[in-house]
Amino acid sequence: MRKIFYQGEPGCFSEIAIKKVFGDKVERVGLRYFDEVMEKVTDDKESVGILPIENTLIGKISYNYDLMLENPVQIIGEVKLSVHFSLIIHPQANPENIKEVWSHPAALGQCKSFLSENKYKPVSIYDTAGGAKYIIEKNRKDIGILADRNVAKRYGLKIIAEKVEDNENNFTRFVFISQKKKKVPIKGKTKTSIVFGVKNAPGVLFKCLSVFALSNINLCSIESRPIKGKPWEYLFFVDFEGDMNDGNAAKSVDDLREIVDYLKIFGSYNSVEVR
Amino acid sequence: MRKIFYQGEPGCFSEIAIKKVFGDKVERVGLRYFDEVMEKVTDDKESVGILPIENTLIGKISYNYDLMLENPVQIIGEVKLSVHFSLIIHPQANPENIKEVWSHPAALGQCKSFLSENKYKPVSIYDTAGGAKYIIEKNRKDIGILADRNVAKRYGLKIIAEKVEDNENNFTRFVFISQKKKKVPIKGKTKTSIVFGVKNAPGVLFKCLSVFALSNINLCSIESRPIKGKPWEYLFFVDFEGDMNDGNAAKSVDDLREIVDYLKIFGSYNSVEVR
Repeated sequence: MRKIFYQGEPGCFSEIAIKKVFGDKVERVGLRYFDEVMEKVTDDKESVGILPIENTLIGKISYNYDLMLENPVQIIGEVKLSVHFSLIIHPQANPENIKEVWSHPAALGQCKSFLSENKYKPVSIYDTAGGAKYIIEKNRKDIGILADRNVAKRYGLKIIAEKVEDNENNFTRFVFISQKKKKVPIKGKTKTSIVFGVKNAPGVLFKCLSVFALSNINLCSIESRPIKGKPWEYLFFVDFEGDMNDGNAAKSVDDLREIVDYLKIFGSYNSVEVR
Repeated sequence: MRKIFYQGEPGCFSEIAIKKVFGDKVERVGLRYFDEVMEKVTDDKESVGILPIENTLIGKISYNYDLMLENPVQIIGEVKLSVHFSLIIHPQANPENIKEVWSHPAALGQCKSFLSENKYKPVSIYDTAGGAKYIIEKNRKDIGILADRNVAKRYGLKIIAEKVEDNENNFTRFVFISQKKKKVPIKGKTKTSIVFGVKNAPGVLFKCLSVFALSNINLCSIESRPIKGKPWEYLFFVDFEGDMNDGNAAKSVDDLREIVDYLKIFGSYNSVEVR
């Protein structure tokens, strides 16, 4: 593995997550949209990408669940990254002149109380670190951005408030994706991710979950996504503790296959929490 | 009931949903943010509001689930509204000069294929109908908006494409909310909405769902939301068919209460699908 694709500018949380796992052993390539990360991964069997899929303050990032559903990818590793936001402004700006705060919609959502208490107008942009670059390039002294504290140093900006998220106990969960199974240097619990679809009937989701409960397998996450064109029918994304190479997990998934109309396995991988 | 608060400008889908249920018998008051709708409802026991909570193309509107969790409200009725989008421009604009398309993020999400096929740049604004008002006021001939077709007539604009959503079989689900139970003129299936929290352990969600499965109660929807400050713990919003005034549903919820750490009941109400 020589390079990994992420959405954002250098200094954003996706790039930090890659560095926490690989250090400087891989090239990190920033792209503008999540779709472009997925395109790079599906264009070339050797490519690896990273996508954020959940934040502990705002919840699942549904957009990326849908991207993973629609494309032939596997999950090959997971990082849960501790996330804090600083309010960052132009080095010559006066904090009192800051009226608007720019950041990624997910970042604005995580700092909702801070923004409303200080009467800052939130403005959505495509990336947390991208906003920092813009402030310097355009010499803007009237806007602030929300980003990781290291973004300030990288772009020569100043920090006027730290840890402004609604709750400091805040993590974003990222997955490494690829077309083929690849070795990722993550040591941690083994998890498996799947998605399945069932016809709506009394007790049907209960029946699906029973295959895991009866094998004493712990579910880490469940997320329902609508099926386009079939109102009120859903697909369920489920993460559980266990490895498809171990008989217990494999048997549960085999039992599930008997019940569901649709099943896709994203694979088994290791997961680690980093600060 | 004399007035109902909604988020948006006249002509938006929330306002249409109110009209479909109440005709012209109530005053419809548009506000800028979902939070303001919730404030009006919590400020006065007589107030009623409407919030969109799910769309069949993009999924749950998590923001409004969180608002309902944090505030003392009941659900008093539900409308599933068939939703179509038109591309609407200034009456003197040349379609070839349209580069950007403005709409609510949820609307842009529902028309993703159309936007990318036609290479329109999507721009998020706070409301579908609000964009129409802006085009006329500012005389903008370079942008289009995505909104209901009636918005064009209301603001004197022209339609250049219809039903541009990713799939025509598209509904948005709205709930009427209030502090107190109130009579809403909706005839349809009775549903009940609850939210519960459990400690993470193998099979615990399965155990919760078992109370419904064993009583043969059909679940309509399940949505997990993160608990702020408690990473990887969740609350589960569940809608099921049945009325808390009927013994079967009430008994199931009583059984659930024995298992969960937290339970909130949003109430039983009627639900209708309108086109």
